[in-house]
Amino acid sequence: MAIITLTTDFGIGDYMVAGIKGAILKQLPGIQIVDISHEIEPFNLGEAAYVIKNVYPDFPEDTIHIIGVDALPNEVTRLLAAKIDGHYFVCADNGILSLILAELKPEELVEITLGRYNAYSNFPTRDIFVPVACHIARDGLLNIIGNNTNTYKHLNFLKPQTKEDKVLVGTVIYIDNFGNVITNISHKVFDEVGKGRTFEISVRNFKFTRILSRYSEIVTDFNNEVNSHGEKMVLFNSAGFLEIAIYKSNPKTVGSAKSLLGLKIGDNISVEFK
Amino acid sequence: MAIITLTTDFGIGDYMVAGIKGAILKQLPGIQIVDISHEIEPFNLGEAAYVIKNVYPDFPEDTIHIIGVDALPNEVTRLLAAKIDGHYFVCADNGILSLILAELKPEELVEITLGRYNAYSNFPTRDIFVPVACHIARDGLLNIIGNNTNTYKHLNFLKPQTKEDKVLVGTVIYIDNFGNVITNISHKVFDEVGKGRTFEISVRNFKFTRILSRYSEIVTDFNNEVNSHGEKMVLFNSAGFLEIAIYKSNPKTVGSAKSLLGLKIGDNISVEFK
Amino acid sequence: MAIITLTTDFGIGDYMVAGIKGAILKQLPGIQIVDISHEIEPFNLGEAAYVIKNVYPDFPEDTIHIIGVDALPNEVTRLLAAKIDGHYFVCADNGILSLILAELKPEELVEITLGRYNAYSNFPTRDIFVPVACHIARDGLLNIIGNNTNTYKHLNFLKPQTKEDKVLVGTVIYIDNFGNVITNISHKVFDEVGKGRTFEISVRNFKFTRILSRYSEIVTDFNNEVNSHGEKMVLFNSAGFLEIAIYKSNPKTVGSAKSLLGLKIGDNISVEFK
Repeated sequence: MAIITLTTDFGIGDYMVAGIKGAILKQLPGIQIVDISHEIEPFNLGEAAYVIKNVYPDFPEDTIHIIGVDALPNEVTRLLAAKIDGHYFVCADNGILSLILAELKPEELVEITLGRYNAYSNFPTRDIFVPVACHIARDGLLNIIGNNTNTYKHLNFLKPQTKEDKVLVGTVIYIDNFGNVITNISHKVFDEVGKGRTFEISVRNFKFTRILSRYSEIVTDFNNEVNSHGEKMVLFNSAGFLEIAIYKSNPKTVGSAKSLLGLKIGDNISVEFK
Repeated sequence: MAIITLTTDFGIGDYMVAGIKGAILKQLPGIQIVDISHEIEPFNLGEAAYVIKNVYPDFPEDTIHIIGVDALPNEVTRLLAAKIDGHYFVCADNGILSLILAELKPEELVEITLGRYNAYSNFPTRDIFVPVACHIARDGLLNIIGNNTNTYKHLNFLKPQTKEDKVLVGTVIYIDNFGNVITNISHKVFDEVGKGRTFEISVRNFKFTRILSRYSEIVTDFNNEVNSHGEKMVLFNSAGFLEIAIYKSNPKTVGSAKSLLGLKIGDNISVEFK
Repeated sequence: MAIITLTTDFGIGDYMVAGIKGAILKQLPGIQIVDISHEIEPFNLGEAAYVIKNVYPDFPEDTIHIIGVDALPNEVTRLLAAKIDGHYFVCADNGILSLILAELKPEELVEITLGRYNAYSNFPTRDIFVPVACHIARDGLLNIIGNNTNTYKHLNFLKPQTKEDKVLVGTVIYIDNFGNVITNISHKVFDEVGKGRTFEISVRNFKFTRILSRYSEIVTDFNNEVNSHGEKMVLFNSAGFLEIAIYKSNPKTVGSAKSLLGLKIGDNISVEFK
């Protein structure tokens, strides 16, 4: 049977997440439910998109991903169910789909009509997304629970800017549990603009002239590996984005990229190609 | 097979929650275990009751709810298993049952005798509640693992007070992940006292004269919806309690009801009917 | 089918934990995955070892425990799979195995060779540990995915020190969700050194001359049990270690052992036998 995943900004202290799970299990006893994250910053679509986009390919095809972030329907915000890249996504038409899709096109897309009568529920993730997800999990067709549509709200995914084919200016889009700082500069864009030229990356007052392929490459002597703890580096992370990292970062001891370099979401990072 | 849910104040960093799950799976391989919350404030029965009471109906009947909050048995505190509203609850006789029941009566109630010999375990949730829950999940009868009883500790559920049939004084009982502030004034009590009269709700220095039926009702122009971010409102939440909320609250940006109105658990909110 | 447990320092906000789960479910649909903790302090092997050592016996035999803490392989750090005490552990050769084993010997131990070609992945927990764990869950032999080895890195587990057969000096190794403070003095060591003599335990300026067998033993009058809230005590916790605790501790109200006694990890506690 299909898997249902949950990505929300509900936190894990309230009863909302358990309410969603109970409602799913009432319809589909035994189905596997996987938490992706419930720690999305409230209403932060960019963060939600970054998280789900980087993890959905790890799941089997036909997995159903419920996104309970900024999901209240209203006069102009519809609720959507989409098939993208072999996976199903159930979310509000608040723009998140455009961030997840990037250059992909949805294979199928419907405006949800199921549950139209409780469309003004204050808990649509449980009251509308759950029955939709369960319908899909039972191999139901999307056009049974919604009307086909071709449109969805577009948000400008914060793209890195190129200046005179020489400078690439990116933005911090995410900070992970280790305080490592992730930018919106993908490996692909870096290569397209850089064309193999040498470069200098500027992060506030710090300059970097090489990009490592793995964290441990910063270590020069593994028999005294502890000497490298706390060293700064730049690499492409496992999601393919340029990341400023600290080797074995620990906010309580050696510090993290976030704290040591004083970076926060929205800050700029620039790459100058020679 | 039945589902077992867990509500505790153990947090998710320690090994306690996993210990409970391991112990359940040792007895019942493959059973579905759902976390309700492990973030209950230590020993806070009111918070635990609010959470479990609002979520248990989302689960299928015969679900078994383990409540590992303030669960150490002692000379005067027994351990209980109860059937209420088609669900099973396993908890200490510390008063939480009276908060969950409110106006309901238990369909069955036993004082747990199973595991009497390790009744002084420092980890009764694992050592006593787990075997009891597994017994119930195997369709075992309650009176096999305990003795029928009619009594349980009563706590005064903090009820809103009525003054001269004109003023209703409620209390903040919960603050959710969005910083929205929930009071103990239920829709039912509000209607019984208000009898349809107009009203003014006082929350510190703020006055409200209408109660919305959904969050998005605060928005007047959906094409400029962002203008409404941060607006204060009062509504009945999905659990049926009067809630003071901020539209698209975010503690890091527009603020939350908790921070903007300076509210904390135990504060009073009053409603004056005209 | 086997159970796979996860212990990491990834936190629950990022997509890493869900990525691991997705990767497992791609290979083994329906397998049960249990989170032990994802809140280990970054790279803290002592904390990870304390948590997993105290909880693995609660799981059925043949459970597979993935430890994603400090798991990046490098020129000198191999990846290991071990069978210990009827359970499987998959981790890096960073010393954690020696902390888990203590006086045990591994029943089987291999250096992982599976996935050697992506051995420099920046996400080895997903890319290497998951296929290894799934192989074991399918009853695969360890020597198919690795080469037998007899060696593993040893860390000096912080042992309590004995002075002149009279004084036992222990160290705070863990602080739990209630702020209770756990030392490395086991019941066994205490008995071996103390030989039944009377004793005085010194914790900063506080002295204790008895060890309770359960938290509620501090209460003298259960009808006025609230009078005991906040009282200090020493007992052996459910894992068998000497713990300094506060009865019904709550950081927000009566305080905790951590806050009231000003203790942190690494602090000393001494026991003087008379």
